[in-house]
Amino acid sequence: MSDYRYPYQDGIFVLNELIGLEQICHQAGLDDVADGLAEAILDEATKMGSEQLAPLNRVGDSTGATLKGGQVHETPGFSDAYRHFCEGGWPSLGADPEFGGQGLPAALAVAVNEVWQSANLAWSLCPLLTQGAIESISAHGSDQLKQQYLPKLISGEWTGTMNLTESDAGTDLAALKTRAVRDGDHYRITGQKIFITWGDHQMTDNVVHLVLARLPDAPAGVKGISLFLVPKFLLDENGNTTDQRNDAYAVSLEHKLGIHGSPTCVMSFGDNDGAIGYLIGEENKGLACMFTMMNDARQGVGLQGLAISERAYQQALTYAKERIQGTLRDGSRISIIKHPDVRRMLMQMKSCTQAMRALTYVAKAESDQHAAETDPAVKAKRKARVDLYTPIVKGWITELSQEITYLAVQVHGGMGFIEETGVAQHYRDARILTIYEGTTGIQALDLIGRKTLADGGEALSALIAEINSDMSEITDPKLQSVVTSMQESLSNAISAQQWILDKAAKDANVAGAVSVHFMMLLGYLCGGWLMAKSANRALSLQAEEGADQEFLESKIVCARFYAEQMLPRTVSSLNAIYSGDESTMALSEDQF
Amino acid sequence: MSDYRYPYQDGIFVLNELIGLEQICHQAGLDDVADGLAEAILDEATKMGSEQLAPLNRVGDSTGATLKGGQVHETPGFSDAYRHFCEGGWPSLGADPEFGGQGLPAALAVAVNEVWQSANLAWSLCPLLTQGAIESISAHGSDQLKQQYLPKLISGEWTGTMNLTESDAGTDLAALKTRAVRDGDHYRITGQKIFITWGDHQMTDNVVHLVLARLPDAPAGVKGISLFLVPKFLLDENGNTTDQRNDAYAVSLEHKLGIHGSPTCVMSFGDNDGAIGYLIGEENKGLACMFTMMNDARQGVGLQGLAISERAYQQALTYAKERIQGTLRDGSRISIIKHPDVRRMLMQMKSCTQAMRALTYVAKAESDQHAAETDPAVKAKRKARVDLYTPIVKGWITELSQEITYLAVQVHGGMGFIEETGVAQHYRDARILTIYEGTTGIQALDLIGRKTLADGGEALSALIAEINSDMSEITDPKLQSVVTSMQESLSNAISAQQWILDKAAKDANVAGAVSVHFMMLLGYLCGGWLMAKSANRALSLQAEEGADQEFLESKIVCARFYAEQMLPRTVSSLNAIYSGDESTMALSEDQF
Repeated sequence: MSDYRYPYQDGIFVLNELIGLEQICHQAGLDDVADGLAEAILDEATKMGSEQLAPLNRVGDSTGATLKGGQVHETPGFSDAYRHFCEGGWPSLGADPEFGGQGLPAALAVAVNEVWQSANLAWSLCPLLTQGAIESISAHGSDQLKQQYLPKLISGEWTGTMNLTESDAGTDLAALKTRAVRDGDHYRITGQKIFITWGDHQMTDNVVHLVLARLPDAPAGVKGISLFLVPKFLLDENGNTTDQRNDAYAVSLEHKLGIHGSPTCVMSFGDNDGAIGYLIGEENKGLACMFTMMNDARQGVGLQGLAISERAYQQALTYAKERIQGTLRDGSRISIIKHPDVRRMLMQMKSCTQAMRALTYVAKAESDQHAAETDPAVKAKRKARVDLYTPIVKGWITELSQEITYLAVQVHGGMGFIEETGVAQHYRDARILTIYEGTTGIQALDLIGRKTLADGGEALSALIAEINSDMSEITDPKLQSVVTSMQESLSNAISAQQWILDKAAKDANVAGAVSVHFMMLLGYLCGGWLMAKSANRALSLQAEEGADQEFLESKIVCARFYAEQMLPRTVSSLNAIYSGDESTMALSEDQF
Repeated sequence: MSDYRYPYQDGIFVLNELIGLEQICHQAGLDDVADGLAEAILDEATKMGSEQLAPLNRVGDSTGATLKGGQVHETPGFSDAYRHFCEGGWPSLGADPEFGGQGLPAALAVAVNEVWQSANLAWSLCPLLTQGAIESISAHGSDQLKQQYLPKLISGEWTGTMNLTESDAGTDLAALKTRAVRDGDHYRITGQKIFITWGDHQMTDNVVHLVLARLPDAPAGVKGISLFLVPKFLLDENGNTTDQRNDAYAVSLEHKLGIHGSPTCVMSFGDNDGAIGYLIGEENKGLACMFTMMNDARQGVGLQGLAISERAYQQALTYAKERIQGTLRDGSRISIIKHPDVRRMLMQMKSCTQAMRALTYVAKAESDQHAAETDPAVKAKRKARVDLYTPIVKGWITELSQEITYLAVQVHGGMGFIEETGVAQHYRDARILTIYEGTTGIQALDLIGRKTLADGGEALSALIAEINSDMSEITDPKLQSVVTSMQESLSNAISAQQWILDKAAKDANVAGAVSVHFMMLLGYLCGGWLMAKSANRALSLQAEEGADQEFLESKIVCARFYAEQMLPRTVSSLNAIYSGDESTMALSEDQF
């Protein structure tokens, strides 16, 4: 097992040098945060994560939640940790001050969230999903619902869930069957939902379910879906939890490959009289409300990909430094970090994790800038950029996290396969990330369809232009090879985009067949962009007095490694795109 | 959970069309095998695998072996299956007739072994390791040891183990500490070995341990290692098992990520008076004996990579055909196999599994041809080719099997993460394959060092020349794009080889840093070669009367898909090789 420490120096580097957190804070009128409070917050989060959440990670793996007497009991120790988490004010960090939030920038909140997700992925899903519920209620809920539910969700006093999937309606939400019937000022919900993360637990005195359901007179398909708020316990007139249990129960728990500490529930609504639910937004407009929640969660899952990669990297690094294997000619024994192939794996983990971090934070900072923007035209562009980032952050980072956690096991050799070592847990836990909140295939379809073909490539062209411009500003010969690799990758991205606009716009099969390659190409490109920018910034900082030369040099080396070893993948993606869908779709089903 | 069927048509295609099994059989004087017996054998194996071993696969996962009273008790049902396996004569298929074997070609035996490994990877490790012990005793054992042990190992009456690893000596065998002391006509062995697969069980009345140990006066390092045969029970003068228990015990079992059905033992030798052991080969020459066993096992693990990929593919395919998700414009619901991205995953699984199969069988056929060859010069070349294949079969196939089993989970969406579905087991089981019998890094070092740099690239150049010549024989325009891709990949391989001969010969760090990229490049190349040959053969066969057009067409489509989507990876590998070791080795340990 390994200790975990938030990679503070790299996190601060991204916040200060890539994002300009200071400026974001000043823009938002948060001068105290700009003047050192951000570092203090991150420091405190690091302590909470390392000392309280990280040690519970393996406990959750070996002792998952249980269902007894209709109630889910979470892993022992999780509840205390959650209480400390709330007492520390952590749930409200980035939330709206109108409802008790602290209103800190999303870019800072995402760094803090990295701590929780690295320290304990299964536990941290609970606040992550609560965050999605908050976003959705904030954006679409009535004033009354906001007043009743937001303060206690934001304080962490209650938690939230997302009830979307049914056994015959996963990716295909149009097929969902859960029913909602009007009943005075509220609705009665009946149906069964599966894969409900943290659907029940004893950490708080209420759980707020957001449930997709269909009204009797709703149109068919996704245009007939509405979103409802279904509390586990009903509220009194003062908005406090009563002992009146709503007809919404966890009826079983899944036995999963990973994230054992996170109870994945089958939720049954309305087995008795119908669960009481309150409409969020308008009838039959649930899909938009769901997407508010989902888009937030998608970037959150991308963050999880970064977080578990960082945790796995730290464990592999510790092992590689300690494990003695091999003898030099002079007879001295060496640790495996001295073996070039082990180093190659560690460098890939290190550089990719940095690239993931940079992209995750930059994407969140874009949300801050979007929120602060007053010029409608610029605001629309910022919105388009956030929307473009979302599937890349979710899709590319979580795919890459599979490889990074794989390598972490590999560095351990035979010990990696032994569960007590703990690194296999990260590999198992990570496996869900490319599945939930929309599989990789769904992210890729979103990217190629809604985010590229729908606007004729406008948002993507703007991103490519920005990357191109940033690269042209890098003139130091030390980074020449990085810039050259980036120019090739840019050219690959432009070729891919052009090919897709030409060939995929009118052919859904072509779009579907090449979409994952396209997403991966853009992911590697974005990672390379931010690694190159980081290295260029590091070069400048090296000239400053008192600079941490070792750290800054490592940023430059990581950018070089990434450019040399990861960016070449963009050309294989492009070549695969060029092959289109012909051989992919050629076989009949019987020929498989 | 899924049924398993050996992909009979593809297996026979490889045996007949790529390998020329008939000719191999005639060469070996096995005319009856050539005349249809091979098909009958494979057919019977398929039945045994599907009906008896496959259903026990999940049982082994959920109910692993236990250690009680110093004895390992395997998963319930495994022992019966093993008895049927022996009664069917399966263990002796490819073994030497002098000791009771059936002397069938290795190329046919490997196809039969694919059945066992697909049906039940954990169970099949037991005969796989026994096979390694047989090889080592056959090649290096005294006549007496052969007479005493080979017949019962070949019949399956006893099983064999490989005792190499110690807690401080994994990859680095030079560090091993187990001691052997001369004691009359035998030796006394003392020490502890870890990660001993099927180190104990109740399926047979004896277990034959092959144990690496060091004599008191042995030279330091790997030149001071000897190999000993240590039976669990001593034999009487007639070579039968007595009740005299040798001082060799399983003292604990590992709790592993996968292959739960395979007991992984800590073995303790000589806690009382020293375990009685018999020298195999000469004193201090144990490494060569170990490599005989190891090289056989390495190709066996490559086969496991193929086998588990095939099993996972079959399960994903079944799910993709059955799972309804999505609605067409006309309102009809469709199964997910109709979605292009799902198809892309299935096509990758299908085409890669075929490429793996072709390479695994071709490599084994090379062993047959080597064995049958009488011209010393040709024989030496065949030996060099077998040696060149071994790290590619082990390294490339097992790495690729990670991706294939990953995709199998992915096709299942959320259900893939639920253990009851069964597909996650394949993903977990597969994870050991790039680790045991030498990690991927070790295979890659073997390939670049002993198999490329050591002979100045001679064996590799011969392989490249053969591939080139085969490609020049493909003239049908339907395969033009495949040939073009192969020519690019050949050019990438030649460039990589040249660069490595220039730059890596004198620099171990460069060799180590680029070795895995080099191995993967050659793996994809070999796969593409055999897919292209298969497609070309399929084209010819299509002209024959009564040909199975659907199947032959699918071989052509799979070759195209592989060329379009997998071969482009060779250029990213080449580019990564060109970057050498500079950024990989640049950081100090503190900078990580």
